[in-house]
Amino acid sequence: MSAPAKFFGVLTPVITPFNKDLLPDAERLLRQCKWMLSQNVGLAVFGTNSEANSLSTGEKIELIDRLVEGGIDPARMMAGTGCCALSDSIKLTAHAVKLGAGGTLMLPPFYYKGVSDDGLYANFSEIIQKVGDSNLRVYLYHIPPVSNVPLSLNLIERLIKEYPDTVVGIKDSSGDWSNTKAMLDAGWDDFRIFAGAETYLLDNMRNGGAGCISATANVNPAAIHSLFANWRTPEADALQADLDVVRNIFQKFPMIPALKAAAAIFGEDKDWCRVRPPLVALDARQLARLTKALKAINFTMPGIRQA
Amino acid sequence: MSAPAKFFGVLTPVITPFNKDLLPDAERLLRQCKWMLSQNVGLAVFGTNSEANSLSTGEKIELIDRLVEGGIDPARMMAGTGCCALSDSIKLTAHAVKLGAGGTLMLPPFYYKGVSDDGLYANFSEIIQKVGDSNLRVYLYHIPPVSNVPLSLNLIERLIKEYPDTVVGIKDSSGDWSNTKAMLDAGWDDFRIFAGAETYLLDNMRNGGAGCISATANVNPAAIHSLFANWRTPEADALQADLDVVRNIFQKFPMIPALKAAAAIFGEDKDWCRVRPPLVALDARQLARLTKALKAINFTMPGIRQA
Repeated sequence: MSAPAKFFGVLTPVITPFNKDLLPDAERLLRQCKWMLSQNVGLAVFGTNSEANSLSTGEKIELIDRLVEGGIDPARMMAGTGCCALSDSIKLTAHAVKLGAGGTLMLPPFYYKGVSDDGLYANFSEIIQKVGDSNLRVYLYHIPPVSNVPLSLNLIERLIKEYPDTVVGIKDSSGDWSNTKAMLDAGWDDFRIFAGAETYLLDNMRNGGAGCISATANVNPAAIHSLFANWRTPEADALQADLDVVRNIFQKFPMIPALKAAAAIFGEDKDWCRVRPPLVALDARQLARLTKALKAINFTMPGIRQA
Repeated sequence: MSAPAKFFGVLTPVITPFNKDLLPDAERLLRQCKWMLSQNVGLAVFGTNSEANSLSTGEKIELIDRLVEGGIDPARMMAGTGCCALSDSIKLTAHAVKLGAGGTLMLPPFYYKGVSDDGLYANFSEIIQKVGDSNLRVYLYHIPPVSNVPLSLNLIERLIKEYPDTVVGIKDSSGDWSNTKAMLDAGWDDFRIFAGAETYLLDNMRNGGAGCISATANVNPAAIHSLFANWRTPEADALQADLDVVRNIFQKFPMIPALKAAAAIFGEDKDWCRVRPPLVALDARQLARLTKALKAINFTMPGIRQA
């Protein structure tokens, strides 16, 4: 197996479908992944918006196995493998690497709060050492609004210095552009910095970033990729403004249920609406409001039904 | 198997020992559990201070199996079984009940923030229904300073009403006495309310509470139980004040590493100092400060070496 190339461009935390028994539905996930790839969007499976933390390690392992068996190129997968328990992180990361995943997106352990940089460093370092595979590529996952466990610039730099061939990028979902900018300005050699939403895609590209990993790429993949592909053109600002209009609609709803509702509406497949507790699917009124808002901007999801 | 009796008195989130490879050490855990029981302290294994959320579901299942094989009465175990993933919660809860655990202490899923009461209700309801065992006894676990996912009084009441024989108690680790008091005043029939620390043990007993589930019962079990046994006596306030002195010392340090350090010092067993990342063991200076502070109050842990 050749060494994985570093990621760039647009990826999405692929939404995870559940069947009537609330079990993960590998076939439907495979279809969504194929559609994403057809739209030039890479697969950050098991991200926050994948309800990753509502899935067990065993369920995640089975799902990525099924995706690869179903023909998904693992090199296009940046699998979320950072768990609360060190043992889960090691097991899942090792499995993803063995399967050929192009990278792993790693949350810090997120139960204990106010932990030190030393403790977080030890977590990532232990995972890297116990996995012990030169093909491991770690993309750190900074999402303090949800994890409540931030990754400091000092910690990131320390990990890069100790593991320069392994710790190769980050997703910044702080929602704080000044934080992303500080990373971009840090001068880390070929370190891939992804904005956590397309909201900052253009800013990120103009400052040396690698792309974005965005929830709404599940529903608006082609347009987001188009901005990535054309960020140097005079149309870039207009493309960014168009993306913002769509994003702003989804942000008026609970994001994950709204993404799934859109897949249900435009994919004509209402089973997509299901979420695992503690999340709750959109109710009829929310669904009607979302449908109306998307119709008002002539929003479509071309190709989702053929996927 | 007879229906489990409801818990009362003092329980502790038993600290979890790790070996050199950072794997759980079942033998050392068994010794700590036996010592706790000999001091009249019940076993809230897999609580926050057990580093429960740094253990995989598989590791937890193996540990409780080993405890019961080692002679621990499962009726004395209130096992922490609430995980982020519904599938983990169901699996672990079902296993604990099958093993005869007297109860399960259930965190809400704690990754996604700002979730609704409906979503949290669905989580607990799904677990109860999928486990489907009349011997299941659920003690809810309210610890917003760490989980960042509070359990509202409305949610608790709704669960009690729907599952009166199953949802039988709560641990309140909010650190907010007015919240505990509001629960005590709610008039829930024989609902067992445990203070999350011995700090509120006397107040809790005087207001109809069931006891406490406290981290420091790992190190100060006999004295905490003594207050529980004597809370109606004239000495109760003095006993509470004595407990507070000990607790205040431990609270000056990161709690879990400090508890383990005390077990290492008084158990003459330095292997107890190990923690799993993201936690960090006390450093030499902290260890010296803790030792000195405990010596100044003539603190001991009688019986730990014989356990």
